[in-house]
Amino acid sequence: MSDDFLFADDSEEEEFEERGSWKILVVDDEPEVHAVTKLTLSDFVFQDKDLEFISAHSGEEAKKVFLEHNDIAVVLLDVVMETDDAGLKVAEFIRNEANNHFTRIILRTGQPGQAPEKHVIVNYDINDYKSKTELTAQKLFTVIIATLRSYRDIISIEESRKGLEKIISASADLFSIHSLENFIDGIIQQLNSLLGGATDAAYITSALASAQGGNSSDLSGFVVFSGMDDEATEVEKAVRPLEEVVEGEILSACKKALREKDVVYADDYVVAYCHSNTEPGSLLYLSGIPRKLNSNDKHLIEIFASHVQVAFENVLLTKDIEDTQKEILQRVGQAMECQLSGGRHIERMTILCELLAREHGLSEDEISVLKLAVPLHDIGKLRVPVEILTKPGPLSPEEIDLVKEHADNGYDLLKDSEKPIIKTAAMLARQHHERWDGTGYPQGISGKDINMFSRIAAIADVYDALRGTRCYKEPWSVEQVIEKFQQERGKHFDPALVDTLLDNITKFEAIIFAYPDSPEAIQQ
Amino acid sequence: MSDDFLFADDSEEEEFEERGSWKILVVDDEPEVHAVTKLTLSDFVFQDKDLEFISAHSGEEAKKVFLEHNDIAVVLLDVVMETDDAGLKVAEFIRNEANNHFTRIILRTGQPGQAPEKHVIVNYDINDYKSKTELTAQKLFTVIIATLRSYRDIISIEESRKGLEKIISASADLFSIHSLENFIDGIIQQLNSLLGGATDAAYITSALASAQGGNSSDLSGFVVFSGMDDEATEVEKAVRPLEEVVEGEILSACKKALREKDVVYADDYVVAYCHSNTEPGSLLYLSGIPRKLNSNDKHLIEIFASHVQVAFENVLLTKDIEDTQKEILQRVGQAMECQLSGGRHIERMTILCELLAREHGLSEDEISVLKLAVPLHDIGKLRVPVEILTKPGPLSPEEIDLVKEHADNGYDLLKDSEKPIIKTAAMLARQHHERWDGTGYPQGISGKDINMFSRIAAIADVYDALRGTRCYKEPWSVEQVIEKFQQERGKHFDPALVDTLLDNITKFEAIIFAYPDSPEAIQQ
Repeated sequence: MSDDFLFADDSEEEEFEERGSWKILVVDDEPEVHAVTKLTLSDFVFQDKDLEFISAHSGEEAKKVFLEHNDIAVVLLDVVMETDDAGLKVAEFIRNEANNHFTRIILRTGQPGQAPEKHVIVNYDINDYKSKTELTAQKLFTVIIATLRSYRDIISIEESRKGLEKIISASADLFSIHSLENFIDGIIQQLNSLLGGATDAAYITSALASAQGGNSSDLSGFVVFSGMDDEATEVEKAVRPLEEVVEGEILSACKKALREKDVVYADDYVVAYCHSNTEPGSLLYLSGIPRKLNSNDKHLIEIFASHVQVAFENVLLTKDIEDTQKEILQRVGQAMECQLSGGRHIERMTILCELLAREHGLSEDEISVLKLAVPLHDIGKLRVPVEILTKPGPLSPEEIDLVKEHADNGYDLLKDSEKPIIKTAAMLARQHHERWDGTGYPQGISGKDINMFSRIAAIADVYDALRGTRCYKEPWSVEQVIEKFQQERGKHFDPALVDTLLDNITKFEAIIFAYPDSPEAIQQ
Repeated sequence: MSDDFLFADDSEEEEFEERGSWKILVVDDEPEVHAVTKLTLSDFVFQDKDLEFISAHSGEEAKKVFLEHNDIAVVLLDVVMETDDAGLKVAEFIRNEANNHFTRIILRTGQPGQAPEKHVIVNYDINDYKSKTELTAQKLFTVIIATLRSYRDIISIEESRKGLEKIISASADLFSIHSLENFIDGIIQQLNSLLGGATDAAYITSALASAQGGNSSDLSGFVVFSGMDDEATEVEKAVRPLEEVVEGEILSACKKALREKDVVYADDYVVAYCHSNTEPGSLLYLSGIPRKLNSNDKHLIEIFASHVQVAFENVLLTKDIEDTQKEILQRVGQAMECQLSGGRHIERMTILCELLAREHGLSEDEISVLKLAVPLHDIGKLRVPVEILTKPGPLSPEEIDLVKEHADNGYDLLKDSEKPIIKTAAMLARQHHERWDGTGYPQGISGKDINMFSRIAAIADVYDALRGTRCYKEPWSVEQVIEKFQQERGKHFDPALVDTLLDNITKFEAIIFAYPDSPEAIQQ
């Protein structure tokens, strides 16, 4: 990696644009030295900045004043003040106690005998030694310019170093994000810390629209993935086709960045190409950066963009595995259900569970485990003869016993797992026919001995079963279902959950209508 | 983050230990200036290093010589040589063409009239201006010390900056690793680039032994996760209990690092605590570092250790989701199988598929999809009445047709997915009863029209079925099975795959014996 950006031509001025004057701390117990120094350097300018003089008249005052500023460029330091070595003590203080190794120290003594040059320059971490007699106006001018140059060089590298430390910390945070929901927010947060101001960000990628395929020349297939609206909870709502969101100059900038695989800087936005192993790569769009970017900022943005890409690909990978897992569970659950109804009972029951859990105040972590586990709750039915499960008429007592075995059978199939999702599914398989009043099966446990997840699943299962067609019944009306739940409140079902259900009945009904069984499934 | 490490007391000497002398480039067309300069500075020492003089006698030679070294600390630069401004041209060359902003340039002129001080110091990026007359021995000594100090400060920060750039690049690589198999190798590789030498590394964590639980005081439950042995292909083989691997001094160092949540440095190894959100954290053990670590190295190791932890947790998270997915598929497949045999057919068939695919030269990416998809190949049987599937005697033609429907039924259940694993499962469901000679069902396709995965699954399915007990048959001997496959080579089965099977028959038999059906399952 080249260091050229540190000293880039176009940025020397910008680099110091927002900074005030160069701060010079003059330490001397003779008032006229302060006056003469200021007079001599009154028209001094280095890199478009003049000097700001800060005065201290003793070693002790110098230490105090020094700590009040963190950006003193040069200290012009007298040696003999309240003591013969007061100035030397100040030099030691700056390096060893204030731990400042950036400020340049020029020792300026009127009594070289008190501080022999060779001894002092070797033993103190100072940056020049001058006797007051040799410091003509020209020499003072030269020494200040030369010293400011060193200070500037040190600060340039140090700013870059600090920026890299921020990148490193930003990366650790970014790589700790595992969901698309938090990804863009994480980027904005890290850019705030990196560029020192509020920014808006969007991630432009073809990776989320794989079905259509990205094309780098016309950007078709690219989508914009931006921060969440307050109302939007689904990732999908934040993903919009590029052409809907971006036009004109910014669209041209996006095309240019993608074509040149580089960063395009404009006055009020930046589009950075994110290098990727998979073509055609992605773009990071930033706006609302509160200040003009210098070359160091630009360098950091380029590094950051490459990390954003790696982090994004990680998030996508995780999401893809999780989505696959979710889909497998849904399809398997539905396959088992298909044997019975061909409908979408499992799909609806999963969503009803999620809704009831969320309305009842369960955490998102709990909800995500519940959602994944629900589809397996009836897996024990794989051991029940299918004719019994699909028998239109009433079942014999022996047949009923066979059906009831599916709870323990399902538990047996899943119980010895260490994975939270499968353990939860085992528990749901066993408990989803238990009842609040203890009249359920297989264990006949009651109240809060039944796991909250199982109490939720029981309600969702029955709610959807009553509202739908089964081989043995026609669908109930919503009024009939409400009445049933009112009757069974505290009997079959947890009364608190029934209250949550009835308080939100329109949301539950919306799910019933949004996921109808297909006509053929109902006929089946 | 504090910058103190940059100038840490204990390391000033170490910091420059391996570096040669300070290189001083003397540029002057008068030979006696070279001689006098060397004589005057002959006993010069700064931070335990003496000076190495490099000579150039013209501006052009200076440019050439400068490019031959990348670590010149100071240039003592004459102005008037082959031209009146030859030295000024050299200064410009160093900054603008060689793009070096670290080397300090001291202009030393015998004819101040040719290069007026004010003009030169303002317009050239030089670090001091001296007329030869003012440069007494003492002043030369002072200016060289002061200038080397600036150079040292710049180089210290620059080395840190470069180290951080390496960390950033190392992190991007580390976060691109998604498997435990590659994780330790990735760490060692990055440490090589960071510390400039071959290292051995191990990661000591309690996160892989969650069942036992970690205890920070006695390190029970901690395991050592180190690089792969050549023979070991499974992650598990590289994970060993800490007490089996480490003892004595290193064990004490591990305990200390964990207790103090800090890094322990010894002469020939380092144990770094990796901060984690989940107690008790992990340790990174490094050895074989080829040189003494300075404070900057130590700072980089600490940063690197924290990134290693985040990366490791990412890998674990991915592994956990993948393991869960794999287990769900296995359990569901087995649940379907249980209805029939209660045995471990699905488990063995999956491993047999993996073995056959690998021996046949399929890629690891292909194998990983195949492994996950195999358990769902019989999902269509969920629609076949269970009495038919478990019927001991021969089936009627109508019953056979019902059984055959499971191929298309399974395909229908899975076909409209976009997920590679589920798409593959749909394809396997449909094709696993096709035959190489076209006499299979449901489509009657032949040869390479049948997908390679399906041809593999067909062999693994039949091989395990023949070798095991079914409700309608006793197990065949391995000799009988070999004969069967020889007969069906090019008829039922892909001849090339049969060759691979028969060439590796002992490996396949080993799987049959390693995963026996439980006695109760066989009786069932």
